[in-house]
Amino acid sequence: MSHLPETLLAGYRNFMTGRYAAETDRYKSLAREGQSPETLVIACCDSRAAPETIFDSGPGELFVVRNVANLVPPYSPDGEFHSTSAALEFAVQALKVKNIVVMGHGRCGGIRSALDPNSTPLSPGDFIGKWMSLVAPAAETVTSNTMMTQAERQTALERISIRYSIANLRTFPCVKILEQKGRLELFGAWFDISAGELWVMDRETGDFERTSIA
Amino acid sequence: MSHLPETLLAGYRNFMTGRYAAETDRYKSLAREGQSPETLVIACCDSRAAPETIFDSGPGELFVVRNVANLVPPYSPDGEFHSTSAALEFAVQALKVKNIVVMGHGRCGGIRSALDPNSTPLSPGDFIGKWMSLVAPAAETVTSNTMMTQAERQTALERISIRYSIANLRTFPCVKILEQKGRLELFGAWFDISAGELWVMDRETGDFERTSIA
Amino acid sequence: MSHLPETLLAGYRNFMTGRYAAETDRYKSLAREGQSPETLVIACCDSRAAPETIFDSGPGELFVVRNVANLVPPYSPDGEFHSTSAALEFAVQALKVKNIVVMGHGRCGGIRSALDPNSTPLSPGDFIGKWMSLVAPAAETVTSNTMMTQAERQTALERISIRYSIANLRTFPCVKILEQKGRLELFGAWFDISAGELWVMDRETGDFERTSIA
Amino acid sequence: MSHLPETLLAGYRNFMTGRYAAETDRYKSLAREGQSPETLVIACCDSRAAPETIFDSGPGELFVVRNVANLVPPYSPDGEFHSTSAALEFAVQALKVKNIVVMGHGRCGGIRSALDPNSTPLSPGDFIGKWMSLVAPAAETVTSNTMMTQAERQTALERISIRYSIANLRTFPCVKILEQKGRLELFGAWFDISAGELWVMDRETGDFERTSIA
Repeated sequence: MSHLPETLLAGYRNFMTGRYAAETDRYKSLAREGQSPETLVIACCDSRAAPETIFDSGPGELFVVRNVANLVPPYSPDGEFHSTSAALEFAVQALKVKNIVVMGHGRCGGIRSALDPNSTPLSPGDFIGKWMSLVAPAAETVTSNTMMTQAERQTALERISIRYSIANLRTFPCVKILEQKGRLELFGAWFDISAGELWVMDRETGDFERTSIA
Repeated sequence: MSHLPETLLAGYRNFMTGRYAAETDRYKSLAREGQSPETLVIACCDSRAAPETIFDSGPGELFVVRNVANLVPPYSPDGEFHSTSAALEFAVQALKVKNIVVMGHGRCGGIRSALDPNSTPLSPGDFIGKWMSLVAPAAETVTSNTMMTQAERQTALERISIRYSIANLRTFPCVKILEQKGRLELFGAWFDISAGELWVMDRETGDFERTSIA
Repeated sequence: MSHLPETLLAGYRNFMTGRYAAETDRYKSLAREGQSPETLVIACCDSRAAPETIFDSGPGELFVVRNVANLVPPYSPDGEFHSTSAALEFAVQALKVKNIVVMGHGRCGGIRSALDPNSTPLSPGDFIGKWMSLVAPAAETVTSNTMMTQAERQTALERISIRYSIANLRTFPCVKILEQKGRLELFGAWFDISAGELWVMDRETGDFERTSIA
Repeated sequence: MSHLPETLLAGYRNFMTGRYAAETDRYKSLAREGQSPETLVIACCDSRAAPETIFDSGPGELFVVRNVANLVPPYSPDGEFHSTSAALEFAVQALKVKNIVVMGHGRCGGIRSALDPNSTPLSPGDFIGKWMSLVAPAAETVTSNTMMTQAERQTALERISIRYSIANLRTFPCVKILEQKGRLELFGAWFDISAGELWVMDRETGDFERTSIA
């Protein structure tokens, strides 16, 4: 019999004796009745930026898509495979979520590669290069600012990218219509993986402001 | 200033006063030194099947991709956008993870739609339809088995799909080569969202067996 | 007899009955022996960013230059009036300070005017326009980034300007020589007038990082 | 990471736990709404003569220019860099201050150097020499009075210089016009750094009289 790595098994044990034991009824009920999360979170794969951790969520609360650099590509009904678009469509049309949060974070490896002029493909397929090319125009405007430090350009592009993804959400007709009807709200957030701070995007200006937990 | 929904803010407060307060040094160190997770998990977006919850993971441990029905498409270096492939490439080539876990779960909505003969597109783009067509051949073999119950067909396809995704992992040259060299291990897992049970795939037979937590 | 505005007189009374009463010996001693502040601070005129307040300084501690946008112009021994250069020369050569801190701040009006394409002269002399033209090259690189919000460009230029002023400090031979000899240290700081946070510039990267007060 | 000198950090901690903690709302409000100080103070860089200390001011109250010997040069719209003129223009035309206070002080090093016949340049640029030459005509009349003690000549020139700077304020058309319209008041003050006394200039006679704090 194959075994999962021991750390995962140990963690699973903690889950079963801890959270699952405490919330057994909830798990059973969610299985029986189905999930009805109110929020879709589009987050990065980064091991330091998990939405469930940051929002201390329990089962049934968040429908979560995670891809490199938490990107939402523009609406493109061209018959190709579009996993993020598929998840978005499912969340909005089938689960009827009320909120969509695009959450980026500091020190994002995907964003860093988009800013690296010497970036070489990680494999002949260069999937990351192609994926991150979604933010190439934005990366160019940032890279050309030689008076900013590398870290400043990194943070700038992380936030520009969140705004870009939110704009792309609105290219999906179902999202646009539901937002206009007041049945769907779009949010941008940026998590500082060092300080633990969560910054929320102001919908009017696009600026990110720190959330007070007071 | 825009505010996130109150439930998310409340959860974030819990995070800051709880986990972050307890693990501040770890967060700062991970930010400073970068992430080096040993495991990539490919899981479903489902709100009841979050890897961090099931494996009780902390920051820095799991690099997580989440898409509908935790699918890994076959290697296809055709210049198109492939977010799951991009994340896989990044995890294997840049982060050099040692383990990949494809984790499916019971009552998966994506799998259900693939088994539904009357399934209609959720939107004109029909992204889900196209995305789930990755498992269409497998779905057909299962659907044609009229002597299984709907729930049995559901569970069957969930597990067939995990095996199919693991096979697709091996179509990526970097994965295949590293696995052969013993530097990368592939795992399949299936989470029973009602009973909380975790089933692990036997690499030899493809069968799923319950993990004991004793 | 002319009187100062009442608010100033009231404040002066507080000073006399408070701080001066408590530190009379120190004032007398400083008058007798002369000042020997160890630090020169170059700060903005802004009413929300006074160094004495932010550093809770007492008499004799800080030699302070304040001009619009805390700029240090490049070394220019051309016989013209250069008040910031004069103060710098005095602090370094006569008072022999050990530290120079260039302190900028958020929401700087001077920086805002440098970023405003429609900025019109405040008077025919257009002194502000000419003074802020010291940062015109930097302002251009920032302004051209249309994907950043106005607030993001503002903060970017505030920090670029601090780095530029520190570089200009080094164009003064006395500063350059003393720094190389280890007798003078240069610092950059940026004060968030809303959150009260003080960010300090990393001398290697030029990045600004929040100071912890723990 | 670079750190500010410990004394500054300690002072900043006092500020955050003291004044900032007590006036947080005020700082946030000033950041949000902008500054509207009613008074511009032109003071000396001297570490013993900080306006915020002497007037016990809080954030938002004083817009402060500090240069060596608190000089205001004559209006000179010649396209050169004039930092004190720029700050004056900004305070009067943009912030629309109601008061301008030129505050000198006893034992001013700049004034002392202007009176020193053997004064040698502090650096080849001789910025201080050039800057203080603004008061050269006045310095000559005082120096030639051999029957006054050195301290008496010092105090005399400190006060002559304040009157000269106030006269120079009136060479700025915007200042002159607003003063005539009763929308701007000009004040002279002289601070005795030993006794803590504040002397205010009588606008009619130019004499300085001690302010009573009773």
